[in-house]
Amino acid sequence: MEILLSIYLGSDSDVEQFKKGFALLDKWQLPYRLHILSAHRTPEALAEAMTQDEKDGCHVFMAGAGMAAHLPGVVASKTIKPVIGVPLASGPMNGTDALHSIVQMPPGIPVGTMAIGSAGAQNGVIFAAQILGGPWQEKAEAHRRERAEQVLAKERQAQEQGYKAFLS
Amino acid sequence: MEILLSIYLGSDSDVEQFKKGFALLDKWQLPYRLHILSAHRTPEALAEAMTQDEKDGCHVFMAGAGMAAHLPGVVASKTIKPVIGVPLASGPMNGTDALHSIVQMPPGIPVGTMAIGSAGAQNGVIFAAQILGGPWQEKAEAHRRERAEQVLAKERQAQEQGYKAFLS
Amino acid sequence: MEILLSIYLGSDSDVEQFKKGFALLDKWQLPYRLHILSAHRTPEALAEAMTQDEKDGCHVFMAGAGMAAHLPGVVASKTIKPVIGVPLASGPMNGTDALHSIVQMPPGIPVGTMAIGSAGAQNGVIFAAQILGGPWQEKAEAHRRERAEQVLAKERQAQEQGYKAFLS
Amino acid sequence: MEILLSIYLGSDSDVEQFKKGFALLDKWQLPYRLHILSAHRTPEALAEAMTQDEKDGCHVFMAGAGMAAHLPGVVASKTIKPVIGVPLASGPMNGTDALHSIVQMPPGIPVGTMAIGSAGAQNGVIFAAQILGGPWQEKAEAHRRERAEQVLAKERQAQEQGYKAFLS
Amino acid sequence: MEILLSIYLGSDSDVEQFKKGFALLDKWQLPYRLHILSAHRTPEALAEAMTQDEKDGCHVFMAGAGMAAHLPGVVASKTIKPVIGVPLASGPMNGTDALHSIVQMPPGIPVGTMAIGSAGAQNGVIFAAQILGGPWQEKAEAHRRERAEQVLAKERQAQEQGYKAFLS
Amino acid sequence: MEILLSIYLGSDSDVEQFKKGFALLDKWQLPYRLHILSAHRTPEALAEAMTQDEKDGCHVFMAGAGMAAHLPGVVASKTIKPVIGVPLASGPMNGTDALHSIVQMPPGIPVGTMAIGSAGAQNGVIFAAQILGGPWQEKAEAHRRERAEQVLAKERQAQEQGYKAFLS
Amino acid sequence: MEILLSIYLGSDSDVEQFKKGFALLDKWQLPYRLHILSAHRTPEALAEAMTQDEKDGCHVFMAGAGMAAHLPGVVASKTIKPVIGVPLASGPMNGTDALHSIVQMPPGIPVGTMAIGSAGAQNGVIFAAQILGGPWQEKAEAHRRERAEQVLAKERQAQEQGYKAFLS
Amino acid sequence: MEILLSIYLGSDSDVEQFKKGFALLDKWQLPYRLHILSAHRTPEALAEAMTQDEKDGCHVFMAGAGMAAHLPGVVASKTIKPVIGVPLASGPMNGTDALHSIVQMPPGIPVGTMAIGSAGAQNGVIFAAQILGGPWQEKAEAHRRERAEQVLAKERQAQEQGYKAFLS
Repeated sequence: MEILLSIYLGSDSDVEQFKKGFALLDKWQLPYRLHILSAHRTPEALAEAMTQDEKDGCHVFMAGAGMAAHLPGVVASKTIKPVIGVPLASGPMNGTDALHSIVQMPPGIPVGTMAIGSAGAQNGVIFAAQILGGPWQEKAEAHRRERAEQVLAKERQAQEQGYKAFLS
Repeated sequence: MEILLSIYLGSDSDVEQFKKGFALLDKWQLPYRLHILSAHRTPEALAEAMTQDEKDGCHVFMAGAGMAAHLPGVVASKTIKPVIGVPLASGPMNGTDALHSIVQMPPGIPVGTMAIGSAGAQNGVIFAAQILGGPWQEKAEAHRRERAEQVLAKERQAQEQGYKAFLS
Repeated sequence: MEILLSIYLGSDSDVEQFKKGFALLDKWQLPYRLHILSAHRTPEALAEAMTQDEKDGCHVFMAGAGMAAHLPGVVASKTIKPVIGVPLASGPMNGTDALHSIVQMPPGIPVGTMAIGSAGAQNGVIFAAQILGGPWQEKAEAHRRERAEQVLAKERQAQEQGYKAFLS
Repeated sequence: MEILLSIYLGSDSDVEQFKKGFALLDKWQLPYRLHILSAHRTPEALAEAMTQDEKDGCHVFMAGAGMAAHLPGVVASKTIKPVIGVPLASGPMNGTDALHSIVQMPPGIPVGTMAIGSAGAQNGVIFAAQILGGPWQEKAEAHRRERAEQVLAKERQAQEQGYKAFLS
Repeated sequence: MEILLSIYLGSDSDVEQFKKGFALLDKWQLPYRLHILSAHRTPEALAEAMTQDEKDGCHVFMAGAGMAAHLPGVVASKTIKPVIGVPLASGPMNGTDALHSIVQMPPGIPVGTMAIGSAGAQNGVIFAAQILGGPWQEKAEAHRRERAEQVLAKERQAQEQGYKAFLS
Repeated sequence: MEILLSIYLGSDSDVEQFKKGFALLDKWQLPYRLHILSAHRTPEALAEAMTQDEKDGCHVFMAGAGMAAHLPGVVASKTIKPVIGVPLASGPMNGTDALHSIVQMPPGIPVGTMAIGSAGAQNGVIFAAQILGGPWQEKAEAHRRERAEQVLAKERQAQEQGYKAFLS
Repeated sequence: MEILLSIYLGSDSDVEQFKKGFALLDKWQLPYRLHILSAHRTPEALAEAMTQDEKDGCHVFMAGAGMAAHLPGVVASKTIKPVIGVPLASGPMNGTDALHSIVQMPPGIPVGTMAIGSAGAQNGVIFAAQILGGPWQEKAEAHRRERAEQVLAKERQAQEQGYKAFLS
Repeated sequence: MEILLSIYLGSDSDVEQFKKGFALLDKWQLPYRLHILSAHRTPEALAEAMTQDEKDGCHVFMAGAGMAAHLPGVVASKTIKPVIGVPLASGPMNGTDALHSIVQMPPGIPVGTMAIGSAGAQNGVIFAAQILGGPWQEKAEAHRRERAEQVLAKERQAQEQGYKAFLS
């Protein structure tokens, strides 16, 4: 199976925060693979999976993790392909620990880091499409236009109905 | 002039933190362009420069800024090409304000964020090469091997001479 | 339609935190306009709306946003009228990211920043009235006296009934 | 003496961080008054000074302070004119304590807060001019254009000479 | 009415966090007075109340507030009696803003600061008794012994029943 | 009764966060003792309990506490055996205060600090087994393999069913 | 020797931050004693010193420490007299760790906490005088008046000479 | 060569912060080995070195790193021996990023974390001796007594000479 993007999560409990990101991939029919593997508990399986991903054409990697989030950095150390990191919100620090563990990579092994949590997971998928270029970049551009249209529809609603239209 | 990468800084005082990054670009002979432009003070010049960059073949954008660092996000809103953001260390908060202003982009307009300051600027250049692929990815890989060799040389020195060899 | 104040929010989900602020505007009959527009997704519509606002007499702008909150700064870059910024509480960092993205504006383009969330939205409205001067400043002063009266009523209750009167 | 702006600092050691702000006021010939008074040590003198300021035509107040910075809030409680607050960088927390003590004002008594330190002091002066309107707003606009020109000059230098022109 | 301790809260919504503190005062029959007054909205009433408190024998003041919590510092500026400050948990920063606004008082006007929220309110009451000395210090000591007995009872339970005894 | 590990908690309300840690100890049949004692309220009982623990063969101590968490440091000052500290999530700062109070021990009295909350309590138990060596280290190793197997099972599920299998 | 105040520091390197505090004690001739003792390294000497202090009439204790600053809390656990805590600025966290370790004391053992560093040490001395009452409270009041006079002198200088008088 | 402790640093620039720690090891003649290796750049060399360490009798591992400090966690994932982590102070966040990246390890792979920087490196060495037990624990105990003696000598000096003896 050919893939362009491979996504690594350290735990199945992280999938929830990626839900909107996966939905976008499904909508775009962007061929990807999801792995649930741990940098520290299953390092061999991780290395093998990444090797297979690259054989299958993978151009971009993404990894999401919470707390002392090492997975994106470890993935980045095992490939020269671009790696996108998503800090996940979990535990008492709610993802600021994961942010520091991913974005503050020392010089040499970059990880392109996104926002904490669901917003970051969605943006990670869009960023992957932007890196992949060609039709995927076009889909990202179309998606951006759709979101702009949604904003403009809200703007029209605001002009017609005022703020009360948006109160729950 | 053909370029592959375009780098935007909001102020000439930011160049110092990018020095090692520029040196890497020079070494690799990666065709790039540096702009000193501001998202808020010179929005038209920024838009024109980006249009010209794209005409000249630019595939990846990078932007660095300090404090309430809006430049990377504004650049990202004006192109569908991937944008790399580097939070710079300046002012009393020393770059944590810039980190939050860049990495916490809301869903829709991603910025691949690097570490604060010089480490992030270097990694931004490497990340750009990884995105560009082909020979640039190979140069990034060679660079990684060189750095690994440097580490291994230090390791040999540590085994032969012990810790005192590294004290200033 | 003549307006004195124009309020920009990046998303309709931000309206809830402005509810008390809008209620104050309604009570004061201060002519204002609410826009739901995004600095990054709908830059042209934002520019047009601001131009129309100024034509319609707008003296003060306000903008609220969460996460990497660029909207107040972008609004401030497009007008020489005073701009009030309200960081909104959203996402895993609960608005401290938005605070840094708004208040730490570099020299040249100021944003008068309020507290995070609903308290800031109310204060933004009061601050706008203070800037507008004349009858609006008087309404703000009357509002302040009313709130002082409410505090003094609570003080009397405390002296008469003690702390148990205030337990739910 | 007629004044339009009155600036309160809690200590003469705070003047240094306002130096560029004062230079701007001098350049614009904006009539202002500087007070060194403390919210806690000299409350009566503060109240009297503010009364005199208002008699002399003062339209906007500004206050800067470090650590548990109460001065801007106390000034705001004594006038219905708009008050601009500047958190100053001092002590081991370097101004983040002052930022929280100024920007997080509870509902009712707003303070339009600027960035920490010298950047905030400059922006406070510009913001005051924007509030004052008329010729002062024009001076702020001219200042913005000058700064934009400076940026564009740096941009030309970058295009002609590259990054090395900016290294010290 | 003679009082030894006077407690100032800025809002009746703050009473809840002081509930356990008030219960301790009731139990000890320590004569105190609760005021709901605001440093900024009702400065005259605050000054008058404090004058009356001192006439009525008040030896120690306490003040609790949330967000940019100026009340304890303002109370401290109006008396030479010791003032205890309690940062309250409210708003998106959950009391860390209030902590910085109270504990970081600049040299000259100290506020003896307690922990954020209910724990701090209880400790404030105990600290007041320690300052008052004599029988109140003895009550604080007896309270400490009671709490130690409670801990020792839990220790015996742990030795006899193990950890499961404490799971809900 | 022989024990190898002794665990000190400052309050019975802390037991909940240690539940998974205790379950692991039960599963491994690692002989341990739980104490509910306070560094500040019951110092003598704490000293006696530790003396008895050491007589009973205790090799490793662990202590968990929230807020200004002094218990691990005090335990560490009373024994030369290794002490593991677990910052607990409680109060408005949710455990970051406890983290600073435990991990930042000044030179001389180390505390091996774990993550905040339940994750840290589990890791503390595993770390104790690693220190104890011999069969306990083997049990820790077996536990690690089990967790790796669980991850690999999730990975197989991901490959077979995709992300939707993990949504609740 | 009779004393009223006893000050505990964990290290002689902490004395520098208390210099202005000691100077104030000398000026006021307030009888005090300085101890260099550690909560963890010299617990017996600490207990003995405190017993002697109380025999010698000590009414108020103060303790300053950096990093995971347990000394104030340990002192507070050994006396029913009021204890003032001063977080000191040392190490990479510059005293915010010490602040959390002192101010966040759990319910039962309060420590009246001052600002981080030299400002807090000065305020601690003033707060001790306020607690001691009588002539010491008068000296604190006179000191406050002196500082107010100094501020007023600066205010006169500001009115006569403007801001340039205060630039170095 | 037999060793009991193996220390991994990611860069020779980290050695400076370990200087006092190494001096203690030298003084105790505790057989150890220093490696300069990177988790991400030299993963194979790291794995080989650790295997050799274990063959040579290594009982305890230590690792220090700055920024997004993954080295301690990666070392911990490759051995069942106890691993001590030392966050190093480097870059604009001065080691708080490294602290979060080390201490917040998710459940399963513990790292016993020390304070940031030089204090943590010293404590790491002491903690290793405590884990090793036997004569090394005795040396740690003797070291603790020596430091206690040093404190007591300072205490005598304080009683004899007062605070001025300690001012530089």
